[in-house]
Amino acid sequence: MTPDQEKAENWWQTEIIEMEPGSIRFRGYAIQDLIGTIGFVEMIWLMLRGDLPTPAQAELLGAALVAGVDHGPQAPSIAIARMAMTCGIGINSAMASAVNVLGDVHGGAGEQALAFYESILARAEGDIPAAAKAAVAEALAAGTQIGGFGHRFHPIDPRAPKLLALVDAAAAAGTVSGRLATVARAVEAALEDAKGRKIPMNIDGATAVIFGELGFPAPLCRGLFILSRSVGVLAHAFEQSQQGGRNKGPLPKGWRWTYTGNPQRTPE
Amino acid sequence: MTPDQEKAENWWQTEIIEMEPGSIRFRGYAIQDLIGTIGFVEMIWLMLRGDLPTPAQAELLGAALVAGVDHGPQAPSIAIARMAMTCGIGINSAMASAVNVLGDVHGGAGEQALAFYESILARAEGDIPAAAKAAVAEALAAGTQIGGFGHRFHPIDPRAPKLLALVDAAAAAGTVSGRLATVARAVEAALEDAKGRKIPMNIDGATAVIFGELGFPAPLCRGLFILSRSVGVLAHAFEQSQQGGRNKGPLPKGWRWTYTGNPQRTPE
Amino acid sequence: MTPDQEKAENWWQTEIIEMEPGSIRFRGYAIQDLIGTIGFVEMIWLMLRGDLPTPAQAELLGAALVAGVDHGPQAPSIAIARMAMTCGIGINSAMASAVNVLGDVHGGAGEQALAFYESILARAEGDIPAAAKAAVAEALAAGTQIGGFGHRFHPIDPRAPKLLALVDAAAAAGTVSGRLATVARAVEAALEDAKGRKIPMNIDGATAVIFGELGFPAPLCRGLFILSRSVGVLAHAFEQSQQGGRNKGPLPKGWRWTYTGNPQRTPE
Amino acid sequence: MTPDQEKAENWWQTEIIEMEPGSIRFRGYAIQDLIGTIGFVEMIWLMLRGDLPTPAQAELLGAALVAGVDHGPQAPSIAIARMAMTCGIGINSAMASAVNVLGDVHGGAGEQALAFYESILARAEGDIPAAAKAAVAEALAAGTQIGGFGHRFHPIDPRAPKLLALVDAAAAAGTVSGRLATVARAVEAALEDAKGRKIPMNIDGATAVIFGELGFPAPLCRGLFILSRSVGVLAHAFEQSQQGGRNKGPLPKGWRWTYTGNPQRTPE
Repeated sequence: MTPDQEKAENWWQTEIIEMEPGSIRFRGYAIQDLIGTIGFVEMIWLMLRGDLPTPAQAELLGAALVAGVDHGPQAPSIAIARMAMTCGIGINSAMASAVNVLGDVHGGAGEQALAFYESILARAEGDIPAAAKAAVAEALAAGTQIGGFGHRFHPIDPRAPKLLALVDAAAAAGTVSGRLATVARAVEAALEDAKGRKIPMNIDGATAVIFGELGFPAPLCRGLFILSRSVGVLAHAFEQSQQGGRNKGPLPKGWRWTYTGNPQRTPE
Repeated sequence: MTPDQEKAENWWQTEIIEMEPGSIRFRGYAIQDLIGTIGFVEMIWLMLRGDLPTPAQAELLGAALVAGVDHGPQAPSIAIARMAMTCGIGINSAMASAVNVLGDVHGGAGEQALAFYESILARAEGDIPAAAKAAVAEALAAGTQIGGFGHRFHPIDPRAPKLLALVDAAAAAGTVSGRLATVARAVEAALEDAKGRKIPMNIDGATAVIFGELGFPAPLCRGLFILSRSVGVLAHAFEQSQQGGRNKGPLPKGWRWTYTGNPQRTPE
Repeated sequence: MTPDQEKAENWWQTEIIEMEPGSIRFRGYAIQDLIGTIGFVEMIWLMLRGDLPTPAQAELLGAALVAGVDHGPQAPSIAIARMAMTCGIGINSAMASAVNVLGDVHGGAGEQALAFYESILARAEGDIPAAAKAAVAEALAAGTQIGGFGHRFHPIDPRAPKLLALVDAAAAAGTVSGRLATVARAVEAALEDAKGRKIPMNIDGATAVIFGELGFPAPLCRGLFILSRSVGVLAHAFEQSQQGGRNKGPLPKGWRWTYTGNPQRTPE
Repeated sequence: MTPDQEKAENWWQTEIIEMEPGSIRFRGYAIQDLIGTIGFVEMIWLMLRGDLPTPAQAELLGAALVAGVDHGPQAPSIAIARMAMTCGIGINSAMASAVNVLGDVHGGAGEQALAFYESILARAEGDIPAAAKAAVAEALAAGTQIGGFGHRFHPIDPRAPKLLALVDAAAAAGTVSGRLATVARAVEAALEDAKGRKIPMNIDGATAVIFGELGFPAPLCRGLFILSRSVGVLAHAFEQSQQGGRNKGPLPKGWRWTYTGNPQRTPE
């Protein structure tokens, strides 16, 4: 190989995949040794982490992925997938328009929650409740949104307690340490103290515990949530394609928006 | 330059832009000679066509670009831009999710209309009305949608007659031939004959006439419409950011969708 | 509920998800009964199909999902994910720009393959080899691309034989009928006869067999591939964010493209 | 109208567009009064600002839009548009994948520059050079990137001096105040003082002056840049479609990336 081809090939570097004609290796493993040997969740782990998980780790990761697939057509991601599908584009593009909106507000709460938990752990010095109390007080004083707690629709998010119970079981079995679960519950308690009412952990707060306990860095919380939500996005896009419709708007046909602008006028 | 750097640089070829440190040329023109000298519509033309338009050509193209900017929040592109903007993503990404849905159904009618007009012109041999009549009959028999005619909301699309009038004026002035306007009107007449009621030309049918008269190939009809609609997409995304909201759904807060699936059950 | 709220709520209908405050049900199952009970692949199946798979079905689906996660940074989807990640957007948006390009050419071969297999099965009347031979001959005569066979990089795609072996095992175990595997091999044989050289089945041809054997309709082949490829897209986007870089271009810094357009000129 | 339909129609509010069957008004103006009467740049202004610009304002805005259309295939936005176009998706989707990456790093410098200029103006109390010097010193001390100055490719960005000259002329004619141009030049001078070498204003720094002088808020700098860059994105996507290619990767066919990961291994 000439130095210049080498220079170009060095411009694109990766530890993830190695390829020769007839050979594909992921993180060192030949693809034919992985297919039929490991499950999809193990493959997700391998791609993101570089090594294979234990069965117990994969099971816990899988539970978090099951939890986030969908929150119905009032979630912008799902509404967009369905509307997009009636506009004459492929299912890949309908999914792209939808996944694209899983931003700081719609998809970022888990990432924020894990970063918050980790900051509490870093300052805790053995006393997690005190550290959580201080961190919550600071966040409330600064007006910072604490991601992962409270839900505008569910008084109690039915996904969170179940996920936390799985973390407890995994901690009891030695799969994870359980320290982030302790932190998250301390945050919940500190929030209740500060606000005078319970603001229960939601799915983002709970999956952040799982992803963090399993060793994923905070930015991958969002990535993992996207893999999960992509399933619902696909299911709704496909269902909409079966229902038909052309250029589906948000409101029933014949309804319109409210105009609040300038009265009628003409250009001079 | 080594052969391999050259090979790589040949992998990316373009007639559009030439660059050296301190120099940018578009289609041969230095950028500093274009800025302040030509208008934005002229620049659009130059980029897509390779040469500068006459003022009359640019004016007609501009009129078509003015016409398509927006059709309100019941259009999926606009609703998506607004919903996306409440999800914690940049205005570039809100625009991307929206522009992405300008597909065959939401953004493709102009392209289909121009291709249809051109196929009529190609078979006309002097008798455009007869060719239009035959083409319309074939399309109706095949169940093919004839893009550019009829509107589910407007009995008469107020944009179409004005655009056609501009084409007529441009034809009278010798800027364009007017042949595609003749074709489009012949299609409208043939459709009325076949259906027994008027199905008037809409904005897509009319802008297709303009783009075609100006020499743009059919696939660029969609591209030009996207440039136009991007303006409305941006305006609505920005307005939504001023209104605020988080994870805006299609229906008012507290309303939900209708579930039509399986009754409650438990996994075995 | 008033008739108008009902009208609006009927505008959005789904069999996938039912929600009340504190309750989320998918296809009739409460989410807390699914989390920790079924795996992620079972959840994908449930969302797309409406019922839970058997363990053997889920295993076979999982194998196909493992197979398609990534094909390296020379695949546009992966290159785009990596470039996008250096532009100051969230990982959700980098993934969206990438997933968006899994269109007819980059993501559609499986869908095309399954549709082709099914058309052969529909005409076979007991003689699959003859039907495959006729269908291949027709496709070649029409110049239609036969998706799922041949690979521009791999002489033999290492994923295909392994996937087919799993189908054979599943057929032997009664999990699937194996009829589409027979069709796919008949297509491969007919192609070799017609072309005079082996054009081996690739990953798309093989996963189409699996998806079809498991009862998924052709359009979901693309959707399932997107779920799979999203994993690689995420892994590469995240790795790029760790490598850093700003506005990463396709070629090494300092290299440029080749300009093939007009020589230098000035506007009149 | 029932209260519930009204509630739904109030969920979508806009000052931009009013519609009745047969009637479309933007900011109070009937569309047929705008088509053929105002140019495309005037329409952009009207949509974003609510009123029509003077001809001189529109001309200055147009110059900034002309300047930013394209920076060649080594810019991620342009490379992505071209690669996307070879993947079997519509030109709308190729444009979406490209526009999507105009984020904080690739599309946000103008927005950052205008916000920086405005912060200097807000603290200046008559002495702009001193305020600029202080602001630059603070930014450098904090390690904050100062958007709009310096270019990794152009020693002097040929677009910036021409744009500034237009602002000077517009200030002399009374179209704009010229105060932001003064600020921008003071920033440039302060940067040179602090760094010991000239770091000249680039296109983002210069267009930020224009957008700000014309009264656009900082977040619209990015939006306006997107409208401009969309032209280049479209031109390159269309040119690529004419060149053909399937699944175009970043490097020439047959070249690959460099693998830096685990050596070969097998799952236990």
